[in-house]
Amino acid sequence: MIKTMSQSVLLISCKDEIGLLCKITGELYRRGFNVVENGEYVDRGTTSFFMRTQVTGGAAGPDLVTALKEQLPAGAHVEFRARAERRIVVYATREPHCVGDLLLRNSCGELVDGRIVAVVSQYPELSELVGRFGIPFHCVPVTAGAPREEHERRLIEITDSYHPDYLVLAKYMRVLGADFVRRYENRILNIHHSFLPAFVGSKPYHQAYERGVKIIGATAHFVNDSLDEGPIITQSVIPIQHSQDAADMARSGRDVERLVLARALKLILEDRVIVQGRRTLIFE
Amino acid sequence: MIKTMSQSVLLISCKDEIGLLCKITGELYRRGFNVVENGEYVDRGTTSFFMRTQVTGGAAGPDLVTALKEQLPAGAHVEFRARAERRIVVYATREPHCVGDLLLRNSCGELVDGRIVAVVSQYPELSELVGRFGIPFHCVPVTAGAPREEHERRLIEITDSYHPDYLVLAKYMRVLGADFVRRYENRILNIHHSFLPAFVGSKPYHQAYERGVKIIGATAHFVNDSLDEGPIITQSVIPIQHSQDAADMARSGRDVERLVLARALKLILEDRVIVQGRRTLIFE
Amino acid sequence: MIKTMSQSVLLISCKDEIGLLCKITGELYRRGFNVVENGEYVDRGTTSFFMRTQVTGGAAGPDLVTALKEQLPAGAHVEFRARAERRIVVYATREPHCVGDLLLRNSCGELVDGRIVAVVSQYPELSELVGRFGIPFHCVPVTAGAPREEHERRLIEITDSYHPDYLVLAKYMRVLGADFVRRYENRILNIHHSFLPAFVGSKPYHQAYERGVKIIGATAHFVNDSLDEGPIITQSVIPIQHSQDAADMARSGRDVERLVLARALKLILEDRVIVQGRRTLIFE
Amino acid sequence: MIKTMSQSVLLISCKDEIGLLCKITGELYRRGFNVVENGEYVDRGTTSFFMRTQVTGGAAGPDLVTALKEQLPAGAHVEFRARAERRIVVYATREPHCVGDLLLRNSCGELVDGRIVAVVSQYPELSELVGRFGIPFHCVPVTAGAPREEHERRLIEITDSYHPDYLVLAKYMRVLGADFVRRYENRILNIHHSFLPAFVGSKPYHQAYERGVKIIGATAHFVNDSLDEGPIITQSVIPIQHSQDAADMARSGRDVERLVLARALKLILEDRVIVQGRRTLIFE
Repeated sequence: MIKTMSQSVLLISCKDEIGLLCKITGELYRRGFNVVENGEYVDRGTTSFFMRTQVTGGAAGPDLVTALKEQLPAGAHVEFRARAERRIVVYATREPHCVGDLLLRNSCGELVDGRIVAVVSQYPELSELVGRFGIPFHCVPVTAGAPREEHERRLIEITDSYHPDYLVLAKYMRVLGADFVRRYENRILNIHHSFLPAFVGSKPYHQAYERGVKIIGATAHFVNDSLDEGPIITQSVIPIQHSQDAADMARSGRDVERLVLARALKLILEDRVIVQGRRTLIFE
Repeated sequence: MIKTMSQSVLLISCKDEIGLLCKITGELYRRGFNVVENGEYVDRGTTSFFMRTQVTGGAAGPDLVTALKEQLPAGAHVEFRARAERRIVVYATREPHCVGDLLLRNSCGELVDGRIVAVVSQYPELSELVGRFGIPFHCVPVTAGAPREEHERRLIEITDSYHPDYLVLAKYMRVLGADFVRRYENRILNIHHSFLPAFVGSKPYHQAYERGVKIIGATAHFVNDSLDEGPIITQSVIPIQHSQDAADMARSGRDVERLVLARALKLILEDRVIVQGRRTLIFE
Repeated sequence: MIKTMSQSVLLISCKDEIGLLCKITGELYRRGFNVVENGEYVDRGTTSFFMRTQVTGGAAGPDLVTALKEQLPAGAHVEFRARAERRIVVYATREPHCVGDLLLRNSCGELVDGRIVAVVSQYPELSELVGRFGIPFHCVPVTAGAPREEHERRLIEITDSYHPDYLVLAKYMRVLGADFVRRYENRILNIHHSFLPAFVGSKPYHQAYERGVKIIGATAHFVNDSLDEGPIITQSVIPIQHSQDAADMARSGRDVERLVLARALKLILEDRVIVQGRRTLIFE
Repeated sequence: MIKTMSQSVLLISCKDEIGLLCKITGELYRRGFNVVENGEYVDRGTTSFFMRTQVTGGAAGPDLVTALKEQLPAGAHVEFRARAERRIVVYATREPHCVGDLLLRNSCGELVDGRIVAVVSQYPELSELVGRFGIPFHCVPVTAGAPREEHERRLIEITDSYHPDYLVLAKYMRVLGADFVRRYENRILNIHHSFLPAFVGSKPYHQAYERGVKIIGATAHFVNDSLDEGPIITQSVIPIQHSQDAADMARSGRDVERLVLARALKLILEDRVIVQGRRTLIFE
């Protein structure tokens, strides 16, 4: 029932010039690859070239990326991602719905070739739920008065021991320091419970109630230095009614939160995301 | 974090005539109830009156329903549903996503005052998943050549031993007999993986692929005698792309299936559904 | 083909207490009204009572509102709106899509019992389009250096000569002064081309492009003193792709802008909106 | 404000084999084209190759298509569509909302490089609306008892006099004969007021009401021999409530009908549609 993802993906971004598609696909052809899905797009404002190419068969060899870079404009960003298991460490706080949804997808084989290897929280509440799925759970409490760096050093130690490809913040309600974030650049996925940039910061549902909006939403984004400011991967909204107070919104919002987070993770695991400054390109 | 549902609900349907709302709310007032949410609607085609009233405080006494019926047109359908735990037996086959989602919501306290008391399947595959949540699992295999009635007798035996208020078919891929269905009239909720009435019967995603539709969907409905013909409670759709074959659609469809099923169950547990022939009225 | 709206609507908001629904519907019953649609809701946070009641038959008499107020808590807001033609003056600037859509609906009889009686703009460009529909067009240019009050005095003069019930700002790109706004309190409907509170102020599509959002939207709201801060009536969003720059978003956004504006106007014309501070209650 | 579409589009479908993308883009490179947007997809079930390529600059010369076909597998379908004005004849019956919406978009320059050159109907009612926009209107009444062929001969005569690229049936409520349809194969766009395949045939909103569905929709599709069976281009749905009867649904449905029709026409005018049997591929 699980999607067989035996295909590898080539991701390229560089300055645009005439003939790029021809050069790249020529190199792939010479190495015996068949292109089964290609998305290419030139941003005319910045004359930048972006491409995602999914291939079968062929042999990349040790020098595919080098060979491509030689033919592309200087400064080209080229990545060849062979299919392989991606290891995921999940961070959560106390709320069970997002982490539970991910654990369920993990156990049903819905995470493509991703695998959740551990869950980390500053509180013990989720221990039982995580334990149900046989996944290691680490409680790393925050010591009042202790410097944040110390707490994050402990987080890094545990996290790195799992050699993760990605960190997923599944309603992790604590801001991470710049050093921590830089260490896992473009590898930390977060879910924020509003349609950003509306209602940044804490208690977005309370903000939404106060403002009297008619839709609420969720935003999945990569985390960078500034809170809630990282490149957005996917967003979705649901309508709300006047009879819903902030607590009702929080309940309804759970469904859109877990769905948006799961969709973003799927896009990442299928290598469909290219980060460009504060924006992302999504090749679907 | 869980919604406190300390309110009771009055559901009424009858022939319309002038003054009904006045009579009903008068009776509620005399018994000390405060109406905190009221939805009333007259179908002008059939001049039928439908009402859902949510109340706090007050005392129904043993004769509220009788007292109301005396003041309403003959044949009025009146139900007073005091808040109480609703017991749910889930039927499933092999697919884990819908039953898993319900178990997760159950364990997180998201099912309002509903509680899953058992899961039944004709196959053993889901035993492990259900076991993770500490819920009893019953495998009731179908014996080749044996009459359906016999299998259903066994199902009824197990089901009734749990005194369920509702049965939820969470991708239960077997048609239930008329006797079985009549036994639990308007108490069996099913999820069908298409936006009915499109693609009734089996393999709706294959049918959808063949027809080349651009949206797929799911439908939650009460089960009555005819397959896929019962009163619809809620439906939702998602867009699909030309690159998705039937298997891809099935994967994408899972998210809409579990969401639609969960939404329908919530509407039922909050007593927001009135069945009228082949249609439902939903008071949100 | 046009919906017959021969029904009148009662809108009530007041402090909640037990028995209100009984008292109100009793008064309606005595005057011979049949309630064909009722929506009532108590905000438990503020213990406020809100109700919209649609009635047929009956006779309001000169004292219905007074009679109701006498039985309701002090300070109750009571409005009885008999069906009648509602006169609408549309303000626009240069963009034709929203004003064109409204003119088309007006000419097809889609505006329930609303009627567009004039279009006003500070520029002459829309004259031809408006003329096609036989509606008076007034160009009121802004004189450089002249005080805003003077321009608005001229607008008021023209507007009031049409005795409008509502003003609809159909992409009117000029901020209106506090005096102007107060004159037509809760009677000015505006469409803002973002899902507020995201991207307030000018050029929301450029802001959306810069931020890299994956959805864009539109918001219809009543105008009050502060720009883009009035009570929201309805909002909707559409997904966008990385290949869309700000100009492409503006093009795609037109469809959601005109739809949201038309929906909000329909809600207003059917008397389904109650304003409560910065929020609205929508009885659908 | 109008999108500049100075780019030409190459549409290719053929049997898949290794190296196709390389050969095609090589040919484009030699002729000086820059590829600004490419979508390619291999259907693994049928091993078919589909590609849409948007190019700037370059010179196709008289032999681009021939040169490409020589390098592609036998039976390849290759089309090079240079940007040019596309002429559109609209067919309608009595309902104004779809034809009015198209005329408005036409007059605002929203139809990319499409242009409505005439409107045809079997009834006179829409004459005034079409006249407002200065577009020729032809009333071709159906003579009772006369053979359909005769009526369609008259339609063809008028239609062909405008040398149209596309025919758009904007709620044209008459079935067209097989000869007529074959004459304009894959060039007739129709809007059906249901989410096909649900509710084929006449009065879909009545069918929807009877079935008690919770969503209604619209489907834009190319017309082929069998009614409502042609390849689907785009579909959309909206939620409905129990208070809406068939007439209310028809009113609400108008918004989704006009939007779906306009979206499909935009996809066609931007050469984003490839028809493959009963299905379409949409390159967005």
